[in-house]
Amino acid sequence: MLTSSINNTTRLQLAPLKIPTRLLLGPGPSNAHPAVLQAMNTPPVGHLDPAFLGLMDEIQTLLRYVWQTENPLTIAVSGTGTAAMEATIANVTEPGDVVLVGVNGYFGNRLVDMAGRYGADVRTITKPWGQVFALDELRTALETHRPAILALVNAETSTGARQPLEGVGDLCREFDCLLLVDTVTSLGGVPLFLDEWKVDLAYSCSQKGLGCPPGASPFTMSPRAVEKMQQRRTKVANWYLDMTLLSKYWGQERTYHHTAPINLYYALREALRLIAEEGIENCWMRHQKNVEYLWEGLEDLGLTMHVEREFRLPTLTTVCIPEGLDGKVIARQVLMEHNIEIGGGLGELAGKVWRVGLMGFNSRPESVDRLLEALRQVLAK
Amino acid sequence: MLTSSINNTTRLQLAPLKIPTRLLLGPGPSNAHPAVLQAMNTPPVGHLDPAFLGLMDEIQTLLRYVWQTENPLTIAVSGTGTAAMEATIANVTEPGDVVLVGVNGYFGNRLVDMAGRYGADVRTITKPWGQVFALDELRTALETHRPAILALVNAETSTGARQPLEGVGDLCREFDCLLLVDTVTSLGGVPLFLDEWKVDLAYSCSQKGLGCPPGASPFTMSPRAVEKMQQRRTKVANWYLDMTLLSKYWGQERTYHHTAPINLYYALREALRLIAEEGIENCWMRHQKNVEYLWEGLEDLGLTMHVEREFRLPTLTTVCIPEGLDGKVIARQVLMEHNIEIGGGLGELAGKVWRVGLMGFNSRPESVDRLLEALRQVLAK
Repeated sequence: MLTSSINNTTRLQLAPLKIPTRLLLGPGPSNAHPAVLQAMNTPPVGHLDPAFLGLMDEIQTLLRYVWQTENPLTIAVSGTGTAAMEATIANVTEPGDVVLVGVNGYFGNRLVDMAGRYGADVRTITKPWGQVFALDELRTALETHRPAILALVNAETSTGARQPLEGVGDLCREFDCLLLVDTVTSLGGVPLFLDEWKVDLAYSCSQKGLGCPPGASPFTMSPRAVEKMQQRRTKVANWYLDMTLLSKYWGQERTYHHTAPINLYYALREALRLIAEEGIENCWMRHQKNVEYLWEGLEDLGLTMHVEREFRLPTLTTVCIPEGLDGKVIARQVLMEHNIEIGGGLGELAGKVWRVGLMGFNSRPESVDRLLEALRQVLAK
Repeated sequence: MLTSSINNTTRLQLAPLKIPTRLLLGPGPSNAHPAVLQAMNTPPVGHLDPAFLGLMDEIQTLLRYVWQTENPLTIAVSGTGTAAMEATIANVTEPGDVVLVGVNGYFGNRLVDMAGRYGADVRTITKPWGQVFALDELRTALETHRPAILALVNAETSTGARQPLEGVGDLCREFDCLLLVDTVTSLGGVPLFLDEWKVDLAYSCSQKGLGCPPGASPFTMSPRAVEKMQQRRTKVANWYLDMTLLSKYWGQERTYHHTAPINLYYALREALRLIAEEGIENCWMRHQKNVEYLWEGLEDLGLTMHVEREFRLPTLTTVCIPEGLDGKVIARQVLMEHNIEIGGGLGELAGKVWRVGLMGFNSRPESVDRLLEALRQVLAK
């Protein structure tokens, strides 16, 4: 039947998958809750199956709960957090729009790069990595740049700093601009009140505070942001992430758009269900309590934190690498000898900090104890 | 600690996930092999973990095998098939490029829409849904339009037609254009020789011929296509799918780009491993044999196929809905009474055909038997 012969040089003969079990205390992914992995293992159904459509509704409602928003357009994007980030930019940015980005870490820079690709006239305000913007600094910048969109990173995964958002939404209304916020490392672990804070666009991921594997990423858009999208003069310059189409799949119409990553939605639904069971405020308090326990233990080891205490994230801590030590070597030993992943620094903080995450299911005293013991042993060498 | 009170109206109290077990014989997803689900269930590691980087290499090699290509830039995109489709367009299209699309079904139209969003000067040639383009028709179109890219759908999921590709690559070289091919419903189930056929860009999905859950999607690009990408005057207008960045994560540099959907890569690696074990040519033959058994059974029920036999896909069959029957009602009964999913028609074929898939793990005589029995019962009512 075949007229051509098969090239077998790439026909690897492999054994079934064998992956070491790690405790993931880096910047993400974090370990998924066992019940979440179990749910993910359910055989897939079709993306238009009535059973699946019901599950989509549950995901939407529970995402509103964890974000504390009533935005109708609240969904999970079929990609990782970066895809959800790009979805916020792509849907509301038109060529020439002034987009003002607060850059105080790696992910601020990513927003700058993305907004530029969608034709925005990008302006920036900057802070040293690890610091945050004060309200009066934001006011001055809004006065100067008069942007259509102000983008801030609520939880800078590269620095461990928490950008306070109280009052920023009011400022944005005053200057008639949309407020876009990165909550990748805050959702589920850090208090968030999107509606009260008047946030117009937010995105996150599944593999951090929500305790789920990566691949289906929360996205939300306020009615104000939807209005800007509906007034576009041009199509959204991204088909996969176009909310004018996606909202018809997630909405009443159920119009086919793309095949959702079914099993990841199973997992996400279970992860959100567990948070609703625990109560979001309890979940936030648990993250805070466990991170304080971590900080105490790290200080006992003689280590110091990079970020001022008031602005430290409960989900991600940047730990200063002591003078004279090679942070990469230490992290590698922690990984290979203790099966614990911690992260290195990115960009300006490369070589200067470790990044330690306590997120979702991993935010437990046992995680802290295991890490402190491993660090104690490795640092004693 | 909290200054705001929690809105609990969206705090759904849900039971753990309960999803019916369906036999998925629609246009996709198809059921995943049990070993694939098992692999997916492995707890995630970090996306820069040495164990994960090794797995990425295996996926790349095995994707080259199933596609029969030696393209170095062969990866899985972190999204579903549509994301991989958009990746092909986004990386090689610059504003003003003439992109010629062969439209003989729903997915040809999607390519038209996408290419337009990336600023292409889009031209089309069309055929009635269910038919394919002949080589001399393509030659005439290339002469007329002189495109930078010719895009064809090898397996039109909306019609069940297989577009032959032999000789098309030579034509494209003659006219100095790139050949971009949709293999979403062919990879793993239909003979494909990308290098021999001189295909420059191809994409697929995981949940059809590869027998894996959806969410990580094969993408490949020839050195000719890479050259066009490298000569771009503008950045790729899509950050998430930018191969100039992604190739540094999948390549030697291992530069962080985004957090991969780890567990889906576990699943994909296992699915590809099983195909390498079976042998790709055996896998193709199995698909052909089982679909012929299906056609015979459908004809015995008095049903007819929409596509001429020579151009029918072994993975997806469009079955004409007999005069006077409501296809949606029948499909719904097959789903709810027999737990078997079959698809309805899209676009021009809505209401006119059912779409029956026999893909990957589901391409077995038992699937055919179950479906024929269910149809027999439902049609007898």
